[in-house]
Amino acid sequence: MPGRNHKKISTALNQQPLADFKVGVDNVIFSVDTTQNRLLVLLVMRQQEPFLNSWSLPGTLVREGESLEDAAYRIMAEKIRVKNLYLEQLYTFGGPNRDPREASDSYAVRYLSVSYFALVRFEEAELIADGVTGIAWYPVKQVPQLAFDHNEILAYGHRRLRNKLEYSPVAFEVLPETFTLNDLYQLYTTVLGENFADYSNFRARLLKLGFLCDTGIKVSRGAGRPASLYKFDAEAFAPLKDKPLVFI
Amino acid sequence: MPGRNHKKISTALNQQPLADFKVGVDNVIFSVDTTQNRLLVLLVMRQQEPFLNSWSLPGTLVREGESLEDAAYRIMAEKIRVKNLYLEQLYTFGGPNRDPREASDSYAVRYLSVSYFALVRFEEAELIADGVTGIAWYPVKQVPQLAFDHNEILAYGHRRLRNKLEYSPVAFEVLPETFTLNDLYQLYTTVLGENFADYSNFRARLLKLGFLCDTGIKVSRGAGRPASLYKFDAEAFAPLKDKPLVFI
Repeated sequence: MPGRNHKKISTALNQQPLADFKVGVDNVIFSVDTTQNRLLVLLVMRQQEPFLNSWSLPGTLVREGESLEDAAYRIMAEKIRVKNLYLEQLYTFGGPNRDPREASDSYAVRYLSVSYFALVRFEEAELIADGVTGIAWYPVKQVPQLAFDHNEILAYGHRRLRNKLEYSPVAFEVLPETFTLNDLYQLYTTVLGENFADYSNFRARLLKLGFLCDTGIKVSRGAGRPASLYKFDAEAFAPLKDKPLVFI
Repeated sequence: MPGRNHKKISTALNQQPLADFKVGVDNVIFSVDTTQNRLLVLLVMRQQEPFLNSWSLPGTLVREGESLEDAAYRIMAEKIRVKNLYLEQLYTFGGPNRDPREASDSYAVRYLSVSYFALVRFEEAELIADGVTGIAWYPVKQVPQLAFDHNEILAYGHRRLRNKLEYSPVAFEVLPETFTLNDLYQLYTTVLGENFADYSNFRARLLKLGFLCDTGIKVSRGAGRPASLYKFDAEAFAPLKDKPLVFI
């Protein structure tokens, strides 16, 4: 809150020289292994200092003539092959001293990170191992200490993912084309944690929204009764697209 | 979508030198004049090239040792005095050629803008005219061509404001402490446009959510029946805080 002290700092800062920046993009790429009900994030092992051999989010520094988004897609294309890739901007982390290169560099260049968010279908995503760097789908619950402030960026991305599941039909981009209501419930449980809603409430709410279409096909899995396969009906959803809506 | 062409561009860009950046913050500060039902945005007239004498969002360039957020608060504190100032990060605009200084500067430094969003109570906000720069609350519907890509940033901020009104209790930060349900409806109409919901549905929905508390006081305005004054009950809202919720 800007009080007297804040104003004093402000005035002093007005006389400081402008900071020089390099700008990085870091991608938080999630996937859900629906067979094992695990939420995964894509990590790569750093091949250079700082944080040599630490796991990190896949990232790169922006080149001359390159937009932020192009840089984000460039690093994706180097790490993963996937259909229908969709990235959205997440947040920009830019405090001083977030990167150890700032201290050692005599020009005192600062490193800012613009983070991007993606959610891809686990079965369709093919990791590109370049023979040198480590690359892995890590269960979010078991992510180790990452390079830089990447644990913080990951936590921010996880919050965005939860929000998107609550307020948008993003789940249907991750599930196979046909799915049981239990598959859908498991996906929500995997991302939001247990007890976000009981199954019968969840089921009733989703069916009432009117964009899940029963294909008439039934599948048997394990001991229970055969379950109906549903499809997401994009046409039925269209009129709801711009309305505020809660999915759970 | 990364196809063959995208890959080719990517590889070429990998050999490009890193871009150098200055980083600006630009604030989209909204207010609602509830007496006239107008949504307002704070604009300042630029005192220097480029875009000398153009209206722009209040902004500044980040100094050495300064965080992005501190820069955003610094420029706010120079332009406006307000209680309970709350800023949140909006989006980062960083494509090449978004700033004409990039072309004329022989070092080809790029200018990136991290935008911040604020909503302040119109009655409490005091503009700081420094005797030189123009500063004004502009009705959003009448905003002229702004400097740089600031019209685009404003449009993004407007979308965020609409979302916040739909999904969060931000309205109660803008209204006076006590208000009629019609005041609340007018605020929503001012931001979301007419016909977002009819008054009786809106009223029923908000009362059902259970965090509006009737003060027992009635006010007469104009010809109609006296209307009840309500308060936002933060305690009743607390259990809903982390639940996905739609306000309209």
